[in-house]
Amino acid sequence: MPDKLTQLKELLGEVYDLRNVAAVLNWDQHTYMPPAGGEARGLQLATLGKLAQIKFTSDEIGKLLKDLKKELAGADPYSDDAALVRVTARDYDKAVRVPPEFVAEQAVVTSKALEAWVEARKKSDFSIFKPHLEKVVELVKRYITFFPPAAHSYDILLDDYEPGMKSQEVIEIFNVLRPKQVELLRAISKAKQVNDKFLYGNYNQQKLVDFAVGIATQFGYDWNRGRQDRSPHPFQTTFSINDVRITTRFEPSAPINTLFNTMHESGHAMYEQGVNPAFERGSLMSGASLAVHESQSRLWENLVGRSLPFWEHFYPKFKKRFSSIIGDVSLKSFHKAINKVQPSFIRVEADEATYNLHIMLRLEIEIGLVQGEMDVKDLPEIWNSKMKSYLGITPPNDAKGVLQDVHWSGGSIGYFSTYALGNLISAQIWEVINRDIPDLNEQIRKGNFESLLSWLRSHLHVHGRKYEPQVIVKKICGMKITPEPYLRYLTTKFGELYGL
Amino acid sequence: MPDKLTQLKELLGEVYDLRNVAAVLNWDQHTYMPPAGGEARGLQLATLGKLAQIKFTSDEIGKLLKDLKKELAGADPYSDDAALVRVTARDYDKAVRVPPEFVAEQAVVTSKALEAWVEARKKSDFSIFKPHLEKVVELVKRYITFFPPAAHSYDILLDDYEPGMKSQEVIEIFNVLRPKQVELLRAISKAKQVNDKFLYGNYNQQKLVDFAVGIATQFGYDWNRGRQDRSPHPFQTTFSINDVRITTRFEPSAPINTLFNTMHESGHAMYEQGVNPAFERGSLMSGASLAVHESQSRLWENLVGRSLPFWEHFYPKFKKRFSSIIGDVSLKSFHKAINKVQPSFIRVEADEATYNLHIMLRLEIEIGLVQGEMDVKDLPEIWNSKMKSYLGITPPNDAKGVLQDVHWSGGSIGYFSTYALGNLISAQIWEVINRDIPDLNEQIRKGNFESLLSWLRSHLHVHGRKYEPQVIVKKICGMKITPEPYLRYLTTKFGELYGL
Repeated sequence: MPDKLTQLKELLGEVYDLRNVAAVLNWDQHTYMPPAGGEARGLQLATLGKLAQIKFTSDEIGKLLKDLKKELAGADPYSDDAALVRVTARDYDKAVRVPPEFVAEQAVVTSKALEAWVEARKKSDFSIFKPHLEKVVELVKRYITFFPPAAHSYDILLDDYEPGMKSQEVIEIFNVLRPKQVELLRAISKAKQVNDKFLYGNYNQQKLVDFAVGIATQFGYDWNRGRQDRSPHPFQTTFSINDVRITTRFEPSAPINTLFNTMHESGHAMYEQGVNPAFERGSLMSGASLAVHESQSRLWENLVGRSLPFWEHFYPKFKKRFSSIIGDVSLKSFHKAINKVQPSFIRVEADEATYNLHIMLRLEIEIGLVQGEMDVKDLPEIWNSKMKSYLGITPPNDAKGVLQDVHWSGGSIGYFSTYALGNLISAQIWEVINRDIPDLNEQIRKGNFESLLSWLRSHLHVHGRKYEPQVIVKKICGMKITPEPYLRYLTTKFGELYGL
Repeated sequence: MPDKLTQLKELLGEVYDLRNVAAVLNWDQHTYMPPAGGEARGLQLATLGKLAQIKFTSDEIGKLLKDLKKELAGADPYSDDAALVRVTARDYDKAVRVPPEFVAEQAVVTSKALEAWVEARKKSDFSIFKPHLEKVVELVKRYITFFPPAAHSYDILLDDYEPGMKSQEVIEIFNVLRPKQVELLRAISKAKQVNDKFLYGNYNQQKLVDFAVGIATQFGYDWNRGRQDRSPHPFQTTFSINDVRITTRFEPSAPINTLFNTMHESGHAMYEQGVNPAFERGSLMSGASLAVHESQSRLWENLVGRSLPFWEHFYPKFKKRFSSIIGDVSLKSFHKAINKVQPSFIRVEADEATYNLHIMLRLEIEIGLVQGEMDVKDLPEIWNSKMKSYLGITPPNDAKGVLQDVHWSGGSIGYFSTYALGNLISAQIWEVINRDIPDLNEQIRKGNFESLLSWLRSHLHVHGRKYEPQVIVKKICGMKITPEPYLRYLTTKFGELYGL
């Protein structure tokens, strides 16, 4: 009879096999699956999900976790074994609290809500989505009741994405952030706007993808353990620590995004590729949280990929490759263009200076809904008034307003703030890295990302899901998640770019 | 409580979900998976295989089958329900007879045998493969003991590929076939050889693939329910009746094969796409047997794709597309070239007139091994002497002889004859179709394959796995599998082509 930890690992191995297999199916569905394959694929994913759930919530795993928690009571809580048991127990506790009938009901409600959302957005008609969103909110409120009461009922939702993080912490961070970002935005809006017309030229799709692949390669994304395909929305997915894939898309209306979404997804992917191989097929595979994950994608996309040193290296190549479009645009003008700040309606198109404001209004709405202080029917109006007050613009219709994001239709309430927290963490980590590697800019200027990736590997990636987000941020940065570094980053960068 | 048939279908639904999911993983492994993904993929496939096996061999399914067999005792055995129960019971009976420990041992032995075979073939050194093949043969003999004694112990192996078919039937068929095919080959070898140099020109890979896709489209392969990708070895795979995929490869040394392997795989695929949609996620999904399946791939590849009427339609397009290589080669010369007969060492490269001879020697060896009349150590010599006597040539080394095929390393003993039987069935069906559609050649000459596909759909495809191979052949052709139509086809076709 193998020891209990080995038994647990074997059982988890099968659970994670099933989950990783589901990831393969999802990847295929978004990249290659023929149009008619969807119905069967849905059933296959449902079967895998059900089996993984049954296996994971088995009494056998429950008993092993209970015994192992006792056995490891005195151990370093962040030893591999204790962390595996703690993180698994956390997942297990959540999984067994939620009744299977609820999960089934949720699947039905969100599947219909998704359909309704697609139609509502297409027609820009909130009334189509409204009854479905009401049901989703009702479900989310019911979900909260499965857990012990929290200081803030929204804590329970947030905890699914940011283990251990409290709503109050996020609210306080955003309260510091909001006025400063609004202030910065007002200052920028008074400055001379930059010209970015050349970013919207007739770029050759394949050439841009090739250029993006070249960047990801230079970053250190390991193609031996990954690949890039096309999909309608770019994403990163993991089937194994040795099979971490990314996708990209080419948008004719914003061709240059191909570069930045590849940097973004390869940032996620390098995190996953850097996880301790010993964590394969277990609960510590993957990253600490969504926010910490986002800190990695944002770091490579923005702090590296939109920086001047980065383009000092890549711009000569880029200019040569796309000379017919770029002409004699200077490095400085190009760098300004890819950092253009302009309030816009759509979150996913937002620049660094406005992005977090999009998130804040979503968080406020989510909390309002969960606490019953807001009604679904009032959301379009609330949305638009918050857009006006934070970004100074009013969406012309609900498709460009309250209907723009898919998240709520899938029941993902509690998710949005992780994007903004990811931005903050990226800047916090960036300050520490720059202390540890004083000539980092010089290295980037030479196209050398080795010590950067290696630093991220050893300080963050290797730990996988071992540390809770606030714990790993504190471990790396000496303090919990805090808005100051990001604000410093924004004001310095855009102060220079816009001559504030 | 749903009725027993519904219960059975629900349980089978999950089993087939898991099997179809495994097919997705295999497809990915052979098309897109990055090099380092193999180890995790192996574990994922093992988990899926184990779960599917546990679910399928459950007492619950056993009990339902027992009850349903009684319930349906008076029903038409080829009604959908009775056939589902019969076919499932046959699969179930086999699955429960083989102990899980044996399956596990087999997995280990064949995995090592595969590795050894790869090395042995590379080095053309049979001694590397010999001990592994001995173990495989030992396992196969042990496998036979799990079943009730048969008239011929090889029957048990054959039955896994051709349900209900007996070794004696195959032996008798081959005994008729062998002398006639050898005789035909001798006659051809005395005739003037055709020129096929232009088939080995510097064809553009993408253009050939596009041309092949055009043919498959015209055949009626449904791209809405399928797709084609590249893989080292072409194959067809099914994830759902609505997701039936094919792969192709481009061989610079034999570029034209891209056309024929696409026709071949799309023949398999159209069979799978034509199965009654009601059979989705159950035991009747897929075709009657490997031989019947092969009859469809061969029919489209050879009886259609290497026929004169077919090229009367496609050759003008082909000539135009590849004019720099084809020049002024006439239709007649082209048709002769793609039907060139020449004894060769490698089965998968064999032409229609020699192919079955490759199979016969393999069958004789397999029977010899299983009956203990041959020793593994003597195989190279036996192989070469049979090659000499059937094909008139002696392999220069074992890589081009006994080591050429992967099948035995995987434990697939009993498989080979299905290829030859497929050829025979294709010719039998072809004669019937030509009686039913007298102007078929005229239609093909116009590039019209609609009534051909529709005939195959209604007479064969729609039935899926419902009928055993000999039963469906008899139902369609009025007689069981027989060599005469194929011999008529060969002698007529090659008699004309070689002026015999």
